[in-house]
Amino acid sequence: MSRFWSPIVHTLTPYVPGEQPRMAGLVKLNTNENPYPPSPKVLAAIAAETGDGLRLYPDPVSLKLRTAIGALHDVDPSEVFVGNGSDEVLAHAFMGLFSHDRPLLFPDITYSFYPVYCGLYGVRHVTVPLDDAMQVGVDDYRQPAGAIILPNPNAPTGSALPLAEIERLVSEHPDAVVAIDEAYVDFGGESAIPLVKRYPNLLVIHTLSKSRSLAGLRVGFAIGQRPLIEALERVKDSFNSYPLDRLAAAGATAAIEDAAWFDETRGKVMASRARLTSELEAMGFVVLPSAANFVFARHPEHAGAELAGKLRERAIIVRHFNKPRIEDYLRITIGTDDECRRLTEALREIV
Amino acid sequence: MSRFWSPIVHTLTPYVPGEQPRMAGLVKLNTNENPYPPSPKVLAAIAAETGDGLRLYPDPVSLKLRTAIGALHDVDPSEVFVGNGSDEVLAHAFMGLFSHDRPLLFPDITYSFYPVYCGLYGVRHVTVPLDDAMQVGVDDYRQPAGAIILPNPNAPTGSALPLAEIERLVSEHPDAVVAIDEAYVDFGGESAIPLVKRYPNLLVIHTLSKSRSLAGLRVGFAIGQRPLIEALERVKDSFNSYPLDRLAAAGATAAIEDAAWFDETRGKVMASRARLTSELEAMGFVVLPSAANFVFARHPEHAGAELAGKLRERAIIVRHFNKPRIEDYLRITIGTDDECRRLTEALREIV
Repeated sequence: MSRFWSPIVHTLTPYVPGEQPRMAGLVKLNTNENPYPPSPKVLAAIAAETGDGLRLYPDPVSLKLRTAIGALHDVDPSEVFVGNGSDEVLAHAFMGLFSHDRPLLFPDITYSFYPVYCGLYGVRHVTVPLDDAMQVGVDDYRQPAGAIILPNPNAPTGSALPLAEIERLVSEHPDAVVAIDEAYVDFGGESAIPLVKRYPNLLVIHTLSKSRSLAGLRVGFAIGQRPLIEALERVKDSFNSYPLDRLAAAGATAAIEDAAWFDETRGKVMASRARLTSELEAMGFVVLPSAANFVFARHPEHAGAELAGKLRERAIIVRHFNKPRIEDYLRITIGTDDECRRLTEALREIV
Repeated sequence: MSRFWSPIVHTLTPYVPGEQPRMAGLVKLNTNENPYPPSPKVLAAIAAETGDGLRLYPDPVSLKLRTAIGALHDVDPSEVFVGNGSDEVLAHAFMGLFSHDRPLLFPDITYSFYPVYCGLYGVRHVTVPLDDAMQVGVDDYRQPAGAIILPNPNAPTGSALPLAEIERLVSEHPDAVVAIDEAYVDFGGESAIPLVKRYPNLLVIHTLSKSRSLAGLRVGFAIGQRPLIEALERVKDSFNSYPLDRLAAAGATAAIEDAAWFDETRGKVMASRARLTSELEAMGFVVLPSAANFVFARHPEHAGAELAGKLRERAIIVRHFNKPRIEDYLRITIGTDDECRRLTEALREIV
């Protein structure tokens, strides 16, 4: 507390990211990073950009990257907005598209940054409970809405809605922006990007942190029709002209263009997820069906905090949320096969 | 305009950065980039970080970089805040430290992003005119102030206040944050960082874009006592947990640590500035005394827009502001000696 603070600062409850410990030998399954490295073409593109040109500002509108994303997803580059991680894209959306007289709606169990953005920008919001199976029910959103945001697959549950349900949500709220946060969609969900052409109220947000193995590079993007993208551009150009540095833009472009690497690595993650799910179920865990690069699981006989603590004693870190409805769950990132094996061996000792 | 926009978006007047044309053979003297490349140690540090580790999130608090900055400036790392370019640091300061009942004060002629931030965050502000010699007068700030921000050296004039005048400003406003934006200080100004220990209301903001030749990497920082830094951290952690990617953090750390390269390149820029100033004056230009990596100059017989246009025809780009009081000035970045020579040859043809 300080008399120098703007009044808003006193009211903030900042987001707490998963910890980033730097211990050797740690099995780190707490922040949904990809267990496989980025494409060698990404590293080559970054190396090619690492030179005297770093003295010059980057392209403020990242046109090459936006062109690559547009080509991949069959939209015009003008319908693509890029940011310093999808968190920055989300922040601009909360400020520029979600602040209305009617409230923003999002699930009660979801990405915990959403209420933080609401606090930062004074966005009125109402949370909509997941059903008893921890699934999003589209019918539950039939209430006054200034905007709606939903991760699909949802986090931390990993559960995905079929595209037809997403389309129903978008079409039932023609006067509200419906933002679908597809951070995890590449691991088995159906993207809503093909719907963008038909729905002016749909914004789809992606990150390169997960399925492109680039959490360390901080690149995310949004796709939508021009009026929505223009709102993000206006906020961005009132905040920071050059959010993407030259290396991030070059690496991200190469990542978007390397379809083979993307398909191979996400395929391996999905195969590991299937194996891990079976092994957890064999130990008595209840595992929610996941379309993400993590599973959300609980054991009927063990509290979540207890399991997370005992794994930590064995140098295995998973994410535990001390929050009603999900306090007995662990969110476990899909690691390499070796990491999954170390996890299941440890859990066998514990349960 | 769109019904989907939050009301604030309709009111924004985004910042327009200097253009970043990509023409071969262009003499680009419009965005105050350093004409010399970054340190080879920066490139080596980035190369060392370009690997499989990019799949992992960066350190959200960039401790290594903050430690290097703290060591350089003799402050604790906890008194250092880093951001995605000093523009992001500034944005967080406008939101977190400058929004009070009493207005924010800044010069009428200054960095044109300041009023844009005010529009984004609803910060009441009053501009204080430069005097007739285009200098900041500290006495002119003796009026109700919720906070004050001042570049030193100022932009686009290049004029610096002596440290004693900065200290007088800071000490005369003990209840207001006084932010000194030292983007250009390394080219001949006196930094206010040594005052931070004695003044809880002083925040000093730096960028690596200019004197460290890293405009393409997007790194800036602020130094102040804990309560001021904590306000920035609270805003940052409500906006984006990981604003600095792994490559930017590694490159910036190496840049901060390479004092020899820093001293050599800024020395060359200052020597070129002295020569360019003499040559411009010999042609009849009025050149404001500059402590920055640019000069602000006008010719009594030629309008600024005319000069900028004729230079552009010769593939030389400088910055012209179509703004009262300064419409006859050109802001000319100090280039390499060859670029300065091409500029002066062109101007000799024109004037």
